Amino acid sequence: MLDVCLLGTGGMMPLPGRHLTACMVRAEGTSLLVDCGEGTQVTLRRQGWSFKPIDAIFFTHMHGDHVAGLPGLLLTIGNAGRTEPVLIYGPKGTGRVVRGLMMAAPELPFPVEIHEIGETEIMAGTLYVRSFRVDHNVPCMGYRIELRRRPEFQPERARALGVPLRAWNPLQKGNTVEIDGVTYTPDMVLGEARKGLTVCYCTDTRPTPSIIEGARDADLFICEGMYGEEEKKSRSREYKHMTFREAAVLAKAANAKELWLTHFSPSLMHPQDVLGEAREVFANSFVGRERMTKILKYDETES
Amino acid sequence: MLDVCLLGTGGMMPLPGRHLTACMVRAEGTSLLVDCGEGTQVTLRRQGWSFKPIDAIFFTHMHGDHVAGLPGLLLTIGNAGRTEPVLIYGPKGTGRVVRGLMMAAPELPFPVEIHEIGETEIMAGTLYVRSFRVDHNVPCMGYRIELRRRPEFQPERARALGVPLRAWNPLQKGNTVEIDGVTYTPDMVLGEARKGLTVCYCTDTRPTPSIIEGARDADLFICEGMYGEEEKKSRSREYKHMTFREAAVLAKAANAKELWLTHFSPSLMHPQDVLGEAREVFANSFVGRERMTKILKYDETES
Repeated sequence: MLDVCLLGTGGMMPLPGRHLTACMVRAEGTSLLVDCGEGTQVTLRRQGWSFKPIDAIFFTHMHGDHVAGLPGLLLTIGNAGRTEPVLIYGPKGTGRVVRGLMMAAPELPFPVEIHEIGETEIMAGTLYVRSFRVDHNVPCMGYRIELRRRPEFQPERARALGVPLRAWNPLQKGNTVEIDGVTYTPDMVLGEARKGLTVCYCTDTRPTPSIIEGARDADLFICEGMYGEEEKKSRSREYKHMTFREAAVLAKAANAKELWLTHFSPSLMHPQDVLGEAREVFANSFVGRERMTKILKYDETES
Repeated sequence: MLDVCLLGTGGMMPLPGRHLTACMVRAEGTSLLVDCGEGTQVTLRRQGWSFKPIDAIFFTHMHGDHVAGLPGLLLTIGNAGRTEPVLIYGPKGTGRVVRGLMMAAPELPFPVEIHEIGETEIMAGTLYVRSFRVDHNVPCMGYRIELRRRPEFQPERARALGVPLRAWNPLQKGNTVEIDGVTYTPDMVLGEARKGLTVCYCTDTRPTPSIIEGARDADLFICEGMYGEEEKKSRSREYKHMTFREAAVLAKAANAKELWLTHFSPSLMHPQDVLGEAREVFANSFVGRERMTKILKYDETES
């Protein structure tokens, strides 16, 4: 099981009743935050999800509307009694900005580790996070977050092969075991690969092929839709953002299951009114709402 | 006329429905902000007061709950089209923290001038701001903000003394004028000093004599009351804050007209319930509410 909460839907500046875009993903004891604009800690508190267990924060880019909530969040995590390190990932330039912001949050009771990353895959607790480059006016990354599902353990095969019982547990976890000179490998006792759960989060950017790859077959694709109306296309090109329709085209090309639009321009007061622009292209499109939450579960038809 | 808006009432961390303490003062074309915690720009927008004309920001101290809203606010001021400099004042250490925070707000369309100050008086537009040291666990200042009232111009005296008409306006403004070898000074044509309007803002601190001086005869004294209950006195000593009653004692000693309590601990959910603690000492005490606003006017009984 993996759950996702969209902590805000605003782009550029927080508005009364519309916090800035950020997203939290939790699965099997791991909590990840993507972006942290001003006010992120307020919606997280309203949502009732704990601050303390946040393992890592992934930044798409270093614009103020995505990062300025960091010092307050770190202070609040500290007040919650955290002592384990908090990991921070982001594109080139992240270190300079994060260290700057942390001037307002000195003397935290936990270490903060900053990692500037390119296109890579990071194992963050129980989740795998793949970063991919997108196209904004500063270095910017999208993130594909996966909870991988282990193949099923097949006790009847283990028994038939005479695998000693004490090897079962490490083999189940995917480890190779040697006992009395005999090597047992996971493939001997595990079934076929099973589909995991995937969330892709992507803002601020023009449409790119990398996004289609990043959102490929995703259970949930959270994508910016800075401008609702198609007539704002030239503006979205100029400022390196997307329209609702452009996001929907990506969702369709990626074969995502569901699209949540977010990061609305302050001028887009009623995003619901232009949702049709996206649905014409990709039927399963939704306007993101603050604290919109979804629990993703494994496909139980897979044995 | 001078108007004051309390933009939030929270201390330590923003809560749903309770933004962090900040305050805006406007008078005769000058706008000053005191402190700028996370979310300050949201309540300012809700209040409907413009961002663009903010001339100066005064920080009491550099704790995150008083400064972390700065990068977002500066970006929003920039988006509003500001090009004139914004001045920033605060105690020792302000430059380092503000420059750090500004890493998330680069390329502003206006200059930001940072001034680290001690106990001094600054003329900020039409307002005079006097800073005074208070007692917290980091360098911290209180601010006395005054709109001074000019003495009344007395045309009958000017006529009697034969002051040329073209000297009247500069004399009214308090300037000395020399015409045809004769020097005219303001005291020749101005009446007695008249009481101006004063707001004093003070957080985070233990009670100090400097606060009594800073709030002397103030029309409005906005003071922290981190802890409502008197039994929290030991905690307020430890963390260098005040109880409601301690703030009221200062208001009374300063002969302030009105006290607004603010900067409530997140644990103080219902400050109204303990207001009696302050009112026993100083009857004109009020619990600060978000966007509580007051218009101060000159005493019209003074001629």
